Amino acid sequence: MTEIPVISGQAVLDAIDPKTAIERTRHAFERYGRGEWEMPAKVYLDSSPFGDFRAMPARGDGLALRKWVTSFPGNTARGLPVVRGEVLLSDAETGEELAVIECSSVTSLRTGAAAAVSAQVLALDEASSVGIVGCGVNGAWSARCLAAAGYGEGVCADVRPEAAEALAEELGWRVGDRAEATEQDVVVTVTPGEEPVILASGLTSGQHIAVLGADAHGKQEVELEAIRKCTLFCDEWEQASAGGELANGVEAGTVSREDVTPLGDVLNGDSTWTRSDGEITLFDSTGLAIQDLAICQAVYERWREGGIDAPVVSL
Amino acid sequence: MTEIPVISGQAVLDAIDPKTAIERTRHAFERYGRGEWEMPAKVYLDSSPFGDFRAMPARGDGLALRKWVTSFPGNTARGLPVVRGEVLLSDAETGEELAVIECSSVTSLRTGAAAAVSAQVLALDEASSVGIVGCGVNGAWSARCLAAAGYGEGVCADVRPEAAEALAEELGWRVGDRAEATEQDVVVTVTPGEEPVILASGLTSGQHIAVLGADAHGKQEVELEAIRKCTLFCDEWEQASAGGELANGVEAGTVSREDVTPLGDVLNGDSTWTRSDGEITLFDSTGLAIQDLAICQAVYERWREGGIDAPVVSL
Repeated sequence: MTEIPVISGQAVLDAIDPKTAIERTRHAFERYGRGEWEMPAKVYLDSSPFGDFRAMPARGDGLALRKWVTSFPGNTARGLPVVRGEVLLSDAETGEELAVIECSSVTSLRTGAAAAVSAQVLALDEASSVGIVGCGVNGAWSARCLAAAGYGEGVCADVRPEAAEALAEELGWRVGDRAEATEQDVVVTVTPGEEPVILASGLTSGQHIAVLGADAHGKQEVELEAIRKCTLFCDEWEQASAGGELANGVEAGTVSREDVTPLGDVLNGDSTWTRSDGEITLFDSTGLAIQDLAICQAVYERWREGGIDAPVVSL
Repeated sequence: MTEIPVISGQAVLDAIDPKTAIERTRHAFERYGRGEWEMPAKVYLDSSPFGDFRAMPARGDGLALRKWVTSFPGNTARGLPVVRGEVLLSDAETGEELAVIECSSVTSLRTGAAAAVSAQVLALDEASSVGIVGCGVNGAWSARCLAAAGYGEGVCADVRPEAAEALAEELGWRVGDRAEATEQDVVVTVTPGEEPVILASGLTSGQHIAVLGADAHGKQEVELEAIRKCTLFCDEWEQASAGGELANGVEAGTVSREDVTPLGDVLNGDSTWTRSDGEITLFDSTGLAIQDLAICQAVYERWREGGIDAPVVSL
């Protein structure tokens, strides 16, 4: 019989601060870029008309992970979470289960951390101000991670004024409209992707834009004309070109693989790209299981050290 | 915060008897055959040289399931289980997690039950005797399910005499060699698939053979010449032709899709096939997530009725 801890979302957020999430996420992109961590494509299980489930496996550093996570957009109207599910962490050498970990906390940390890592790597050195378009759970964690990385003050924009106000108050930032948010040095978009929020006419020289909302086919946060003006980066080409923001450019025939650099290649020095001052960089973040693995590795280590209190169950 | 039960393997086996497993597994094949239950292809996460992890999703009857299960063949020599992992059961309309369920128990029940369902549907009405080749965990559950379905006496064969003896003693059957086991009316093979155990020269007129061991590319339990003599059935063509026993025939060019009938089509009357007396039927069981869903649906219902005692954890 196997005994494993079941680690709640609150326990994850109490144990892993944004700085740790950023370090670990960076580690994941580096390892994956060097081919040391592995990740088969995620699998979608359609559950129309409600949403879909996603099974996301990854392996690295002696651990194997499978995340099972929902995207049920209609849940918001029903007062239910859009993203929920759990991670099972296993030993990659024996197959032994090591932990069950709540997954929306892990998703928030790694999603927010990816936005911060992309800014550290792709934004101008002097970039400072932040615009957040979409102040829901993952928008808020992006803001927290950017703040932890030294960015800000920021402008928080959301169609729900109370969401923007809460985030602005928490971080000592301010509320603004979408146009104001998208003028900042670093812009993060985390909207449902139903209409473009980054317009070609609103781009500012030298900006960095992290696009986090488009995580399935048909979602769009950036006008095609705006994409053409940016230097393009992605977390992973297969996901980004199939279901990320860049999929729209691929379908339109304006974006091809050679136009897009994986973030890990920049981190590892495997890309010849260097930033020029006026360049606008765009990072398409679709969300990778290796990022989840990096956060869960930290959670599991913390639990082993006695730093997380969690019920242990027998399977 | 979500509160869900964590249901151990022992609790599953205590709650679900072989007859229930057979009824539920039959239900799964029927529903899947009618297109009412859905199942994307399983995903393999390689963990060489130790084995692999498999993520298996399915949806039906308002439930969504993801099984995460290992196949680590070398674990036997290390005194560790080859198959381990867990199932997460979710509500397909809200995405809410409903239960974590130990998975080797579920795998055993649905694998054994599939052998019994295949015999009920494909064997001669007067078929009675059983041969089990490979008396490990899944071989033993196949024997228990066949016994529960009214088959037997049986012959238990295994290269490990103690495994064959334990199973024979449990069911009041007898130990025999491989040749003797493969002469019976209903033959089930659950070996590691390293060499053929069903030989063309050993086939008997009117037999039914359920082949359970080949669950990944390269495994083989049946001589190609023997496959040519059988009328062929599978649980699911894509899995069977890619990684099941039939994959070997497909690669050799002797088996094509038109030669193989899915079990669900026979159950639902969507196939024109009817048995002739001397015909030898072969069922390639690769193991489907819809079978896991059927068992987990029964487990969850039993838990809701108060019939399973399990710790409840907060995520």
